Amino acid sequence: METTTPDDRSRLWADLGMNLELHDQLLASIDRVFTHTHLWQMSRPVSMSLFDEALHASHGSRVAEIVEYRRAGGKSVGTFCIYVPDEIALAAGVLPIPLCGGSGWPVDYADRMFPRDICPLVRSTFGMAFSGTCPYKTLKEYPLGETTCDAKKKAWDLLGIPSLELPQKKNPIDRDLWRSEVLRFREDMEKLTGKAISARSLADSIRLVNRKRKLLQQINELRKLEEPPISGLDALLVSQVALNMDIRAFNEACGKLVEELVSRVKKGISAYPAPGPRVMFAGSPAPMGFAKVHYIVESAGMRIVVDESCTGQRYYRDLVDEGASSIEDMLEAIADRYFRIDCACFSPNTERMENVQQTAGDYRIDGLVHCILQYCHGYDIEAKALDKVLGKVGIPTLKVVTDYGEQDEEQIRVRVEAFREMITGGAVASNG
Amino acid sequence: METTTPDDRSRLWADLGMNLELHDQLLASIDRVFTHTHLWQMSRPVSMSLFDEALHASHGSRVAEIVEYRRAGGKSVGTFCIYVPDEIALAAGVLPIPLCGGSGWPVDYADRMFPRDICPLVRSTFGMAFSGTCPYKTLKEYPLGETTCDAKKKAWDLLGIPSLELPQKKNPIDRDLWRSEVLRFREDMEKLTGKAISARSLADSIRLVNRKRKLLQQINELRKLEEPPISGLDALLVSQVALNMDIRAFNEACGKLVEELVSRVKKGISAYPAPGPRVMFAGSPAPMGFAKVHYIVESAGMRIVVDESCTGQRYYRDLVDEGASSIEDMLEAIADRYFRIDCACFSPNTERMENVQQTAGDYRIDGLVHCILQYCHGYDIEAKALDKVLGKVGIPTLKVVTDYGEQDEEQIRVRVEAFREMITGGAVASNG
Repeated sequence: METTTPDDRSRLWADLGMNLELHDQLLASIDRVFTHTHLWQMSRPVSMSLFDEALHASHGSRVAEIVEYRRAGGKSVGTFCIYVPDEIALAAGVLPIPLCGGSGWPVDYADRMFPRDICPLVRSTFGMAFSGTCPYKTLKEYPLGETTCDAKKKAWDLLGIPSLELPQKKNPIDRDLWRSEVLRFREDMEKLTGKAISARSLADSIRLVNRKRKLLQQINELRKLEEPPISGLDALLVSQVALNMDIRAFNEACGKLVEELVSRVKKGISAYPAPGPRVMFAGSPAPMGFAKVHYIVESAGMRIVVDESCTGQRYYRDLVDEGASSIEDMLEAIADRYFRIDCACFSPNTERMENVQQTAGDYRIDGLVHCILQYCHGYDIEAKALDKVLGKVGIPTLKVVTDYGEQDEEQIRVRVEAFREMITGGAVASNG
Repeated sequence: METTTPDDRSRLWADLGMNLELHDQLLASIDRVFTHTHLWQMSRPVSMSLFDEALHASHGSRVAEIVEYRRAGGKSVGTFCIYVPDEIALAAGVLPIPLCGGSGWPVDYADRMFPRDICPLVRSTFGMAFSGTCPYKTLKEYPLGETTCDAKKKAWDLLGIPSLELPQKKNPIDRDLWRSEVLRFREDMEKLTGKAISARSLADSIRLVNRKRKLLQQINELRKLEEPPISGLDALLVSQVALNMDIRAFNEACGKLVEELVSRVKKGISAYPAPGPRVMFAGSPAPMGFAKVHYIVESAGMRIVVDESCTGQRYYRDLVDEGASSIEDMLEAIADRYFRIDCACFSPNTERMENVQQTAGDYRIDGLVHCILQYCHGYDIEAKALDKVLGKVGIPTLKVVTDYGEQDEEQIRVRVEAFREMITGGAVASNG
């Protein structure tokens, strides 16, 4: 079902019990931010229009799709982290709906319940819920959190939201704990639908999600080239949309994009009209609506050629092994795949140090920009550890601590431009 | 060994590689703060002098004691949290030295390594280490952290400090994980000394530490009385000193204090010259050097009759069961005891809600003051959950978010006084 007229949309929002006036303000804010951050680019692939549309559809036809799906008896679960195994939910016939907010507009509405000095991701997410502007609020059986950081963990407690437990180390006993959480998630999904997951459906969903991650790998692989056919801004948008769009539609859109990107490479079409240093974006996730740092870095003449965040490599790097045939073995393979994620919630996070070093070489980066969402202690403190690793191979870094607001754009720009000058030797700048 | 002259002390500090000039500044700051927060009280028990001395000895004769102990071959381990089982270290003949900083003076020295927007406890602790003013820095085989919060967890990683893993939930599998950490700690302690822990030494240390906690229980039990013979400020000082003083000397001092307090009760001597509402102090720990909120609350005419923090009930409430005879069973009993701690690091933290409600009744409190160390997301967010629980039984709360600095004292005082007026009906004030 497509909602085609403004009247249809308004009816949809009203049916969902949303605050129409505030939601209009949110939409206007999303539009304005997107136009500002993305539409200045001179050499976008034509198929990016599919992802531009998907961004807007996240508060439009995608919602209508899910409403229709649920009318037909479909179940769904709201998630806040890439640790929740989509493969299991999908195999059970449950739709996972990622709920992390990336818009600055609703942030203050979270103050009703939360301290102001926690990360904008939590504040944006619940600010949308509290202000009646999250269309997905009622479109799920329940939300499912995870214990990746203090702020999220305590938010679940306060709101009575169940959560998956992440261990904090990567020893064998931690792997056991995580495995038991994965099995519990399977049980929960089966309870939700009243049907057991079959080996066949699980194999299918593993292939389907792997396909999605492989397509993202293909897109991102092309960013290794001297002249990337897609910008960092657009690659980010693809990653953001990956968490909202229907998975089959997304895979189809990615297929088209890959085709176009390959053709652009053959024709020598770069995403960047001018030369510029190659940069890695690292740190906290950049959910849909938040592209400020990418925008500043790329509009300052640098090229973000790889994202190591949850809205980047951390999401698509690892696949689930497809060799298993029993459900039990598939679940082990799923537990393995998710346990490899190098989130800053792990202590020590040796894997991240190694991954970033490897990626820095693979993508031949000239510098790294840490984007730290304010009060995200994990990535903030870990930035220093990463700096030590990169310092040894002579790669400079810049740490940007920010939130979803727009007011610090020019302050950040000054620092980003100094960083660019330092890298290109245009001037002497200190990186602290 | 006692260092008796200023010259002896200076030699001691120089031998420990400390920065003498900065250390003098730190000592002056500690003295000034202590005089300000504690010495205005009109009705202190005489035996509090033992604890006043112990506070000062923590940068004096206590250090000399430990230097002597180590010269004689004694081993020690630096700790940062009440989750590290003292019983096991002591049974192995290893001295646990709690290292958490509570002084505001060294905080800025942590900026060399850490972001400014993490909690003052981490910043004070490492600020002392980095500024050469922590006398315990070299007096241990190694420091041992734990994964109770994001900031500490990542601090260990950054500095290469090993840590005990705390699980984040209280399910049977979490208990298994915690048990394995307790067993690992036993192995580490045995490796350190090269000697196996005997059943007898473990039984002894369990009794010794239980004795310490029982003495703290006795002292705090007397705060339930209509006229407590000890103030909240002094009870806090006893709890703070408990983490630094030699355990046998501490138990002896507590014995004297209990005797005096019982006698004061018989004679009708209150710690408080004037009547005032009964208040619970809750939230983040208040390590040695930090008594600002206690000072403001009590000098504003309220009585802190119970502390539910790590420098309060959370430390002394639970004992290790003494019924076990094999080492294995004793270690189980230790794991059980520590697993009951109701730290905000657990999700959900149902036990804390129940404990606070129970304590509120036992101590007949009129109000609760949350003391949240800035950026301590765990206790900050959980405060709201506690408010809901207490709201149901009509107990008002006040949340004070602060750090170790002295500059916000008057701002906090205005809010604390309004809270007192609200409780006593002297004026109408809102508690948010």
